[in-house]
Amino acid sequence: MASVGTPDPDPIPDPLPGPSANPAWLSDAALVEARSRLPILYVEAVPVRVDGMGVVTQVGILLRANPQGEITRTIVSGRVMYGETLRDALFRHLEKDLGPLAFPQLPPSPVPFSVAEYFPIPGLSAFVDERQHAVSLAYVVPVTGTCEPRQDALELTWMTPAEASSPVVHAEMEGGRGTLLRAALASVGVLG
Amino acid sequence: MASVGTPDPDPIPDPLPGPSANPAWLSDAALVEARSRLPILYVEAVPVRVDGMGVVTQVGILLRANPQGEITRTIVSGRVMYGETLRDALFRHLEKDLGPLAFPQLPPSPVPFSVAEYFPIPGLSAFVDERQHAVSLAYVVPVTGTCEPRQDALELTWMTPAEASSPVVHAEMEGGRGTLLRAALASVGVLG
Amino acid sequence: MASVGTPDPDPIPDPLPGPSANPAWLSDAALVEARSRLPILYVEAVPVRVDGMGVVTQVGILLRANPQGEITRTIVSGRVMYGETLRDALFRHLEKDLGPLAFPQLPPSPVPFSVAEYFPIPGLSAFVDERQHAVSLAYVVPVTGTCEPRQDALELTWMTPAEASSPVVHAEMEGGRGTLLRAALASVGVLG
Amino acid sequence: MASVGTPDPDPIPDPLPGPSANPAWLSDAALVEARSRLPILYVEAVPVRVDGMGVVTQVGILLRANPQGEITRTIVSGRVMYGETLRDALFRHLEKDLGPLAFPQLPPSPVPFSVAEYFPIPGLSAFVDERQHAVSLAYVVPVTGTCEPRQDALELTWMTPAEASSPVVHAEMEGGRGTLLRAALASVGVLG
Repeated sequence: MASVGTPDPDPIPDPLPGPSANPAWLSDAALVEARSRLPILYVEAVPVRVDGMGVVTQVGILLRANPQGEITRTIVSGRVMYGETLRDALFRHLEKDLGPLAFPQLPPSPVPFSVAEYFPIPGLSAFVDERQHAVSLAYVVPVTGTCEPRQDALELTWMTPAEASSPVVHAEMEGGRGTLLRAALASVGVLG
Repeated sequence: MASVGTPDPDPIPDPLPGPSANPAWLSDAALVEARSRLPILYVEAVPVRVDGMGVVTQVGILLRANPQGEITRTIVSGRVMYGETLRDALFRHLEKDLGPLAFPQLPPSPVPFSVAEYFPIPGLSAFVDERQHAVSLAYVVPVTGTCEPRQDALELTWMTPAEASSPVVHAEMEGGRGTLLRAALASVGVLG
Repeated sequence: MASVGTPDPDPIPDPLPGPSANPAWLSDAALVEARSRLPILYVEAVPVRVDGMGVVTQVGILLRANPQGEITRTIVSGRVMYGETLRDALFRHLEKDLGPLAFPQLPPSPVPFSVAEYFPIPGLSAFVDERQHAVSLAYVVPVTGTCEPRQDALELTWMTPAEASSPVVHAEMEGGRGTLLRAALASVGVLG
Repeated sequence: MASVGTPDPDPIPDPLPGPSANPAWLSDAALVEARSRLPILYVEAVPVRVDGMGVVTQVGILLRANPQGEITRTIVSGRVMYGETLRDALFRHLEKDLGPLAFPQLPPSPVPFSVAEYFPIPGLSAFVDERQHAVSLAYVVPVTGTCEPRQDALELTWMTPAEASSPVVHAEMEGGRGTLLRAALASVGVLG
C-alpha cells in the first residue's frame, strides 16, 4: 500500500503546548532529522470497556483520515517525549484521542502486551511506517468515562471483541495495526 | 518450619453456602481424599492501591493466625471450585478476605504474574503446603473501596512497596509467600 | 460440534508406568469421580521451530483421531499428576506426543502465555471439554530435535505462522484450541 | 551518587563497523545532541544458564570499570540503532559483552520481562542515567556456549539465583540495575 501505516498520524509533530514550553523537546526540523537517524519511541493503547469481573466487553477503534485523505481505522498512539515517563505519555495520548473525560485506568504493570517495530521499508516486521523507524510499547487500557475523540480522529467506534477480531476490521487498519489489535485481544483472552 | 505454609488457611473447606448448594462440590471427606491424589487449583491475589497513573502506591498484607495459633502474614488465597471461573474464584476470595466493599478491579488479562507450586514436602519448589499439592495462579489486584477483613484474617495492613519489599516482611510470611509477594512487586515495577 | 473439545484426548487416563508406580495417583474410577467434582489441572504446549535469532518460523500441529473417530487438529496437552512439577508434566507430555528425540527447550519462565478454562457446558468460556472442568496453563515450546508422534497422534504437521493463523486451521481444531493457537502465535509476535 | 548508572557504558558510542558503514547512523556529535532531546531506546539482557528442564541455575553478572574508574556490576546493555530490529540489537550487544561463542538463545517472545526508564535526574523512577533519558527493554537470555567478556567488561561472574538475589550484589550494581536484576529473577521464578 502506498498509504502508509504510522504509529501516530501527526502531520504536525506532537501536540505540545508550544516549543517554548520545554526547550529540551525537539523542533520540527530537528525531529525530522532525528527520525532519519534514531529509532523513535512510541506508546500505543487499545481502549476497552470491562465488566464488573474485569472481562473485556468492548473495544474502542478510532476512525481517522490519514495524510492521503483516506479513512482508516487505528488505535491510540503517539511519541514519548524527552523526560516524560511512559505512563505520562500514555495518559497524554489517551486524553488527546479520547478527550478529558475518558478516565483511563492505566495498568499497574509497565510491561506491554506487545512491542511493535515499525520500519520505513516493509518486510522487516509486520509493521510499516514510511516516516520513520518507530518502536512502540502497546497496552490495553480500560476506560470508564465518556470518550469524545478530538483532534484528527473522526470517531471512536465501540465493537465487541468478536467484531474487532474480524478480517474486515483487520483489513481496514493501517500500518499493520490489525495484527497489533489481535495481539491485544489475545492478551486479554477475548480474541475470536 | 513446623508452621506450615498454606495457599489458603481453611481448616474447614471453602466457605460455601452449604453442601446442598451445589452437589457437584466436594464433601469434606472427599476433599481430604482428593487432596492426597490430585494437584488442587488455587488463585491468590495481592491487593494494592494505585494512584491516578496506575502506579502501585500501597500493598495490602493480611495478618492471620494459622492453625498452630501463630500470627503470620499472608495474601488473599483460596481454592477454585468445580464449575467456577478463575475470575469468579478470585472475586469470591477477595470478598471473603477484604469484605464486600473493597471493590476489586480484576485485571483484563487472565495471565497471572506468577504460578506458585506448593508441595507437601519442601525442596521441590520455593513453596510449601503441608496439606496438599496446590498450584496457584497469582494476580495483583487494585482495590478502590474500603477493606474490612473478615473470617480468620485479623487485620489488613497497608504498606508502601518499599516496606513490603523488606526482609522483615519477607520473613513473616508463610509458605514461601514472601517470594510470591516480591514477584508481585517486581511485576508492577515497584520491588525495592 | 456435539463431539469433542478436550484438553487431552485420553480415553484411557494418563500414560503412567502403571498404577502401582505411585499409589498417590488416582485410579481410573477415582479419576472419573474427581473429574466431576474438582477442576483438573492441565498443561498444554505449542511446539515451534525458531531460527538463530529466536524468531518462530514453524508451528507444530498434531493430527489426531478423537474418541468419535473424527480426525481433528490439536496441540500437546495433558494432566498434571499429584506431586509433579509443571515442568515435569510439560516435559512428559511433550515426550509422549513428540517422541523422545524432540529435545524441547522448556521456557525459563513458569508464566504461561495463556490460561485456558475448559468447561463441560459451552458458553462459560471459549473452551469446551465434555468430560470435565479443566484449567490449562499453555506454553510455547521450541523443539530442536526430531519429532515422531507417538500414541494416538497420527501425525505432526509443521506449518508457517501464516498458515497456522488461517481460519481453515482454526476451524479444524477441537475444543476451542484454534483460539489458544492464535493466542500462542500472538504471544511470540507472529500471528498473521 | 556521583557514580552514575548508565544503561550502557560507552564513553565511545556503539561499536559500529565505522561511521561509513551506515550513513543513517548518528555521528558522535549528533548522538550527544539527540540524547539531550529524545528518549533513547536500549535493550538489556540478563544472561543465564538453564538446566534440561529450563530452570535457571546460574546468572551472569558483568564486572566493569565505569567512567569514574570504579568497579561496578552490571548486565548486558546497549542502544538500538536506526533500522535495527530489537533482536539484532540484543544479539549484537550479547556478542559484544560475552564474546562470539556464547550462543545466546533469544526468547521467542519479543515482550520484555520489564521496561526500565532511566532519567538523568533521580526520583522519577528507580533508574538513573546521568547522560540521557533512556528506555530499556530487558530480557532474560539463556546462553549455552562459552562466555569471554570483551571490550571494557573485566569479567563475567556466574552466580546462583540465591547469590544474585542478595542485598550485597544489589548494592554493587549501578544505575538501579539491582532492581532490574531482581525483576529478572522474579520473572523466571527464582528470586530468593
